[in-house]
Amino acid sequence: MFSENMVQKLESSSWIRVMFEEGNRLAKIYGADKVYDYSLGNPFDEPPAEVQESLLKHITSGEPGLHKYMSNSGYGDVRAKIAKKLQEESTVSISDNNIVMTVGAAGGLNVVLKSLLNEGEEVMVFAPYFVDYGSYVSNFGGKTVVVPANTETFEPNIEEFEKRINAKTKAIILNTPNNPTGVVYSEEILKRIEEILQKKGKEFNTTIYVISDEPYSKIVYDDIKVPSIISIFQNAIVVDSFSKSLGLAGERIGYIAASSNIEDISTLVNVFIYCTRVLGFVNAPALFQKVVGDCLYVKPNVEDYKAKRDFLYENLVRIGFKVNKPQGAFYLFPKALISNDIEFTQAATKHNLLLVPGSGFGCPGYFRMSYCVNFDMIRNSIPAFERLAEDFK
Amino acid sequence: MFSENMVQKLESSSWIRVMFEEGNRLAKIYGADKVYDYSLGNPFDEPPAEVQESLLKHITSGEPGLHKYMSNSGYGDVRAKIAKKLQEESTVSISDNNIVMTVGAAGGLNVVLKSLLNEGEEVMVFAPYFVDYGSYVSNFGGKTVVVPANTETFEPNIEEFEKRINAKTKAIILNTPNNPTGVVYSEEILKRIEEILQKKGKEFNTTIYVISDEPYSKIVYDDIKVPSIISIFQNAIVVDSFSKSLGLAGERIGYIAASSNIEDISTLVNVFIYCTRVLGFVNAPALFQKVVGDCLYVKPNVEDYKAKRDFLYENLVRIGFKVNKPQGAFYLFPKALISNDIEFTQAATKHNLLLVPGSGFGCPGYFRMSYCVNFDMIRNSIPAFERLAEDFK
Repeated sequence: MFSENMVQKLESSSWIRVMFEEGNRLAKIYGADKVYDYSLGNPFDEPPAEVQESLLKHITSGEPGLHKYMSNSGYGDVRAKIAKKLQEESTVSISDNNIVMTVGAAGGLNVVLKSLLNEGEEVMVFAPYFVDYGSYVSNFGGKTVVVPANTETFEPNIEEFEKRINAKTKAIILNTPNNPTGVVYSEEILKRIEEILQKKGKEFNTTIYVISDEPYSKIVYDDIKVPSIISIFQNAIVVDSFSKSLGLAGERIGYIAASSNIEDISTLVNVFIYCTRVLGFVNAPALFQKVVGDCLYVKPNVEDYKAKRDFLYENLVRIGFKVNKPQGAFYLFPKALISNDIEFTQAATKHNLLLVPGSGFGCPGYFRMSYCVNFDMIRNSIPAFERLAEDFK
Repeated sequence: MFSENMVQKLESSSWIRVMFEEGNRLAKIYGADKVYDYSLGNPFDEPPAEVQESLLKHITSGEPGLHKYMSNSGYGDVRAKIAKKLQEESTVSISDNNIVMTVGAAGGLNVVLKSLLNEGEEVMVFAPYFVDYGSYVSNFGGKTVVVPANTETFEPNIEEFEKRINAKTKAIILNTPNNPTGVVYSEEILKRIEEILQKKGKEFNTTIYVISDEPYSKIVYDDIKVPSIISIFQNAIVVDSFSKSLGLAGERIGYIAASSNIEDISTLVNVFIYCTRVLGFVNAPALFQKVVGDCLYVKPNVEDYKAKRDFLYENLVRIGFKVNKPQGAFYLFPKALISNDIEFTQAATKHNLLLVPGSGFGCPGYFRMSYCVNFDMIRNSIPAFERLAEDFK
């Protein structure tokens, strides 16, 4: 009766959101402080003071037309500031004409994929990966090709990647620092990927675009430097958001930045702008464009996330979990204590622990924990993990 | 190289946006006060004081989590307020479970169409109509069927409508008060449409949904009452936005409200919520959800629009244009002085008049003027219309 495809997909819907709703349900029964909800990447911190100041400044300034339509690409002054910052951080020339403001990174990814894909073309993702990528690709008639995980390092599996490239490969999606593992892909691996893309592009006489989903690029630990995707890849299209770095997940604000090395870049950007309109975004929310333009150099409270990562990592290892220590983002991706991760996370809810099965990231046998939560909740959850481990001894 | 479909469509892109960009170009050459830009439905007024107060209240309140993710359907308290108001205005039971907050009406329409359409199903629109409807429908494999205009009254052409219904008709889109004509469809016509939908639904054993795009429902003149779509149509899905009524076009905030008389409504709403996520909207912008929740009963400055309508209508008629006096919205849709409306609007740019050809609304031979502009601009533009009319004598 409705869209059959959507009704079917609804039934196999995201584990993250299932757990988020389950958390709300359990919180009503047991009280929010008795539920250990590690399900959602919803930054715990309030936005930094600079965001608050910028909001107040713009609202009280009386600047005319602040809340009106602007060009579909977004406010020119904000795009210019973003271009300037990206220019400082990369070796590639980026002008404000290469920037399109978006309704978050999810909106940006949809715009990019609609702009690129023809029916049946393929987009490659590296497991474990954010499962909604698959939905975004299929929105536009594309096919998602999954490169299986290298569960030793959780860096891209290069051999399996190279095997899967063919004449229909239109793009790959990179996500580093990675959700769900927190791994920062090394510059060496990224450069090998670019070499392979260049080689295969010549072989098949195609252009393979690199779509880089970068919401966690500012959340890194231990002086790790995230390699600049736009400097490494000729055909780089960066999609960024301020959801995580400025704690603005609910405000839906981000941008697309495309490398000026892409052939016929001005047509591509015009297609981005057109797709922004016809997908119904029209433009990124006006006020928050101005706000993020003011806050581009504001850094998230990484020390706080680091303390949480360290505490959880040490405790999980002590309890007997196998887990890689993440270098960025705010996720841990431990191995489940049984091979069936769905059964495992369901067992965890008995201890009021909300974990997301790795199957939801194309990587069964593991589970994801978002530690962008209250430190007290983390501390109080440790006995629950101990009891959970006890159940599987 | 990119999406061939999108590159092609880009080239035949919206006249409204073409004129908007042309206006920016001319303003740079001649000065903004010398360009008479009637191209874009961008409310001239700043948002009312209540919006400003609500923004300040929420920003300074320190309410925790204001800018975070919430459920994909939006904030529960805001949805409850909207349901209550709709309940007051209609004869149908509407609960907050039937409301999904959206990224403007354009976002809402995309969510609804993705939720309903299977490949090849048809959506009917009544000319003249907002041209992006066609793009929204084709985003999801649907086919737009245009009912030709009744250029006497600009109400729906019932005979032509009935002829075009078949087993593939999945939905119709209504837009009253109408963009571009300003006509408010009469209750009598709407009830005849419902009778036909019920009859044809039985004949073909299908359900035909009525998608009502209602951004102008609060902008009506002369004590005209806009008939309640959700009260008249069994399968009504209302899509509303605050772009026009609260002057928030750039903030992208609206909602979907579905009638509880729709069969299997809870599945449909869950599909809306799912599509909100996978289309990359994720949720409507958080802060402005709260703001519109506070301002549901705030009325736009209709008297100001009415004065502009009256002044323009009288002058255009005096100059020799044939035009229906609109009852709502902030558009006039006069007949062009030659049959080729594109040629006519191009000629108008020589007098620095920016008008949108009716061809862009599926109704050649006419042109659209948005009078949500400065009254001085309207006054100053009258000699330009006189010169334009002189050119075609």
